[in-house]
Amino acid sequence: MIDFRPIFLILGILLTTLAVMMIVPAVADIIAGNPDWQVFAVAAGVTLFIGVSLALTSRAGGANLSVRQAFILTTMSWIALTAFAALPFAFSQLDLSITDAFFEAMSGITTTGSTVIVNLDTAPPGLLLWRSLLQWLGGIGIIVMALAVMPLLRVGGMQLFRMESSDQSEKALPRAAQVAAAIGVIYVALTFIWAVLLWIAGMSGFDAVAHAMTTIATGGFSTYDGSVGHFDSWIVDAIITVGMILGSLPFLLYLMAFQGKPGNLMRDSQVQWFLTVLAVIVVIVAGWLWLGNGEDPLLALRYSSFNVVSIMTGTGYVTAGFDKWGNFAIPVFFFIMFIGGCAGSTTCGIKVFRFQVLYATAETQIRRLIQPHGVFVAHFNKRPIAEEVAGSVMSFFYLFVISFMVLTMLLSMIGLDFVTAVSGAATAICNVGPALGEIIGPMGNFATLPDAAKWVLSAGMLLGRLELFTVLILFAPSFWKG
Amino acid sequence: MIDFRPIFLILGILLTTLAVMMIVPAVADIIAGNPDWQVFAVAAGVTLFIGVSLALTSRAGGANLSVRQAFILTTMSWIALTAFAALPFAFSQLDLSITDAFFEAMSGITTTGSTVIVNLDTAPPGLLLWRSLLQWLGGIGIIVMALAVMPLLRVGGMQLFRMESSDQSEKALPRAAQVAAAIGVIYVALTFIWAVLLWIAGMSGFDAVAHAMTTIATGGFSTYDGSVGHFDSWIVDAIITVGMILGSLPFLLYLMAFQGKPGNLMRDSQVQWFLTVLAVIVVIVAGWLWLGNGEDPLLALRYSSFNVVSIMTGTGYVTAGFDKWGNFAIPVFFFIMFIGGCAGSTTCGIKVFRFQVLYATAETQIRRLIQPHGVFVAHFNKRPIAEEVAGSVMSFFYLFVISFMVLTMLLSMIGLDFVTAVSGAATAICNVGPALGEIIGPMGNFATLPDAAKWVLSAGMLLGRLELFTVLILFAPSFWKG
Repeated sequence: MIDFRPIFLILGILLTTLAVMMIVPAVADIIAGNPDWQVFAVAAGVTLFIGVSLALTSRAGGANLSVRQAFILTTMSWIALTAFAALPFAFSQLDLSITDAFFEAMSGITTTGSTVIVNLDTAPPGLLLWRSLLQWLGGIGIIVMALAVMPLLRVGGMQLFRMESSDQSEKALPRAAQVAAAIGVIYVALTFIWAVLLWIAGMSGFDAVAHAMTTIATGGFSTYDGSVGHFDSWIVDAIITVGMILGSLPFLLYLMAFQGKPGNLMRDSQVQWFLTVLAVIVVIVAGWLWLGNGEDPLLALRYSSFNVVSIMTGTGYVTAGFDKWGNFAIPVFFFIMFIGGCAGSTTCGIKVFRFQVLYATAETQIRRLIQPHGVFVAHFNKRPIAEEVAGSVMSFFYLFVISFMVLTMLLSMIGLDFVTAVSGAATAICNVGPALGEIIGPMGNFATLPDAAKWVLSAGMLLGRLELFTVLILFAPSFWKG
Repeated sequence: MIDFRPIFLILGILLTTLAVMMIVPAVADIIAGNPDWQVFAVAAGVTLFIGVSLALTSRAGGANLSVRQAFILTTMSWIALTAFAALPFAFSQLDLSITDAFFEAMSGITTTGSTVIVNLDTAPPGLLLWRSLLQWLGGIGIIVMALAVMPLLRVGGMQLFRMESSDQSEKALPRAAQVAAAIGVIYVALTFIWAVLLWIAGMSGFDAVAHAMTTIATGGFSTYDGSVGHFDSWIVDAIITVGMILGSLPFLLYLMAFQGKPGNLMRDSQVQWFLTVLAVIVVIVAGWLWLGNGEDPLLALRYSSFNVVSIMTGTGYVTAGFDKWGNFAIPVFFFIMFIGGCAGSTTCGIKVFRFQVLYATAETQIRRLIQPHGVFVAHFNKRPIAEEVAGSVMSFFYLFVISFMVLTMLLSMIGLDFVTAVSGAATAICNVGPALGEIIGPMGNFATLPDAAKWVLSAGMLLGRLELFTVLILFAPSFWKG
């Protein structure tokens, strides 16, 4: 039997934190004189009551979590936080359905950025802030998970990123808490700096804060229907582009940079690959816009860099309808969704280190074919890749492809056309935001999709955000036995 | 330095064989009184001359091939055979361009089944027979390669199918030749039986032979623009459906069945998976046609079974425009292209045993996550999967996905729309035949594609047919060193 008390204890603490966070948009609505502050107050009260009750009644449990409990906690906490985070959406003046509210909250917490809200430009400020805040919290949440939880659970090759001390679980927790706190400070500082930069660039204070939060979290919720394209500003585009890239690098390396090892950041092979791949794709797409579509070369570079960075990192802002850039652009934007950023960042997708491991393994295979009696070992970041890690990464890749296929088929069964179904499945499982095509493309909105599709997409977002295994493992009968 | 003499010797022998085969369509054209017999005679003469010259001038080489030489031979022979097989298409009264002729020949030899020829119904009989013959030869060629060459080269997990004696290369060749001869007899016998069955079912003798060859080879070239739908016959559909399934099973097991071990065939886990997956998809699609589209249930089953079997096995016949069966059918037909049949059959695609290995590995990963200290070993066909095999299969899967992406992007760069590009790339690398969409869908034709796209697709067919590694390895700089 699994002891649920320590799970409920942490769940209670997380819900209590969420309730406290709801005060921020309430204050924003009060300042703006918007009656929706009451919605946040009520939602905060309900969430606080449930959270505190859960925590108090579960105090008796042990202090240490087993691996099994950690898996249950991870998935349960993201679902529970989403459900309660959806309350303000459901009760606000926007009057979203339960499905829409849950979808929007899931899209927020998983830093996806797909939205069902139309007329953002006239939406109450509290709600806009809540959307940004959810992504911001989801972003730091995933960094902490990638540091402290995933390596211990050995999910999809994440054991590559174990901290030195994390092998013994007694030492791991305090050390992880220390590191998490330090990274939290960096996260807050980056957000603050970006808010100031965006404000200087001409955004209102409110827009600057909202966009700084969803930039560093690579979330992609904007406060306008036109997304960042609304501002139509070179300097805003540039600031956000750099911010999205910063949000895609391993935050642990920022910490090490502050601890006097800035070289680690640029020597990290994952960072090098990520930046190289990004640069190559930006240049190719810009070249295509310039030479193929006759766009002004500088404008081509601006549009290409912003939108490629946004989609590859899974942020999801748009400044242009890139699916109207011709036949070549569509599969490019479709495929880069899957790449994502670095492990230990706020990004999602398959992530760069997995492609590195897969590439190194395939290269080793080819060497072995050429010299059957030679001994070749694949390397990642100058260290040999353990068999266990390679197997774990390759299974992740396989399950990612299969999950994408299943999501696509479910969406098409619900009635979505081919482009909407494949790109919707991709944007959900990779936590990107916009998909392709007329309906949910960069200039579209998820509001008109059938409810069933919204639930499938919500499941896809959760699956992708929690690195598949964390969720899928709960469906293994052997998980619940003995 | 690589000694090319033994490579050229075998190449010469293969070209000489191809030249002899060209006599068959020449005879067909003479009987039909079609002047195109001269085209075949000239092409046979040219091919014979080059083949014999190559063989004679290269006699001095050693008898045994090194691994390196085997890789070069494999890729070179498929390209050379395609080039010479294209001659009749280029010089015939159809007057195909070099590009079209090469594409058609590649589609034939790789048992793909995509065609650039319009008005098949009025095409000369020699040419129709040549198309069928190419697929039939390609089919037996790939079975022999899967038995004798691939396991030795250890390509993409094919080492799973080494015959007992094939570890020592001295014994391997005579034994392989013996087995290949026996399997050749089975192949001829199956083709003969299916020709008789189709003739009894009402086809002309010519059509029966042509379709029997492309059925057992899971090739998919038909003698009519309407493909098998032209006959509009329950019994023809049923005979061909069973034939395509037989062509998708491991031919070595047929041999074992004749040697008194018929149980091996049904006990083989690859065969069980293949038949199960096929049955499930046929039933789902039939159910969709019946309940979703209001089709008569028996007719739904007939259309579903024929077209699902045809596309999943990579045959490529069609009896209906399955891309008009609604939104659900499109991704289903798109994804099943990648499955293919069993290793050691005439089918292509990723193949069932690789999905089994990937599934077993992923399942083992999940078990390890649940019990970090347990020891779990993935199994295939009741034997533990060696680390080397698992790595090989997973690299194959990774490279397959990457190759598919690259082909898609090249096709879209040439100007193809999203659906045409992704489905065209898939149908080429999986050697299926028809793609999706208006242009190259089940009711379409590849003739109108730009030349560049036809070359990309030809490269994709070769890549898929030779299990990726065999071709890609030639691009590794280390292959050519020392």
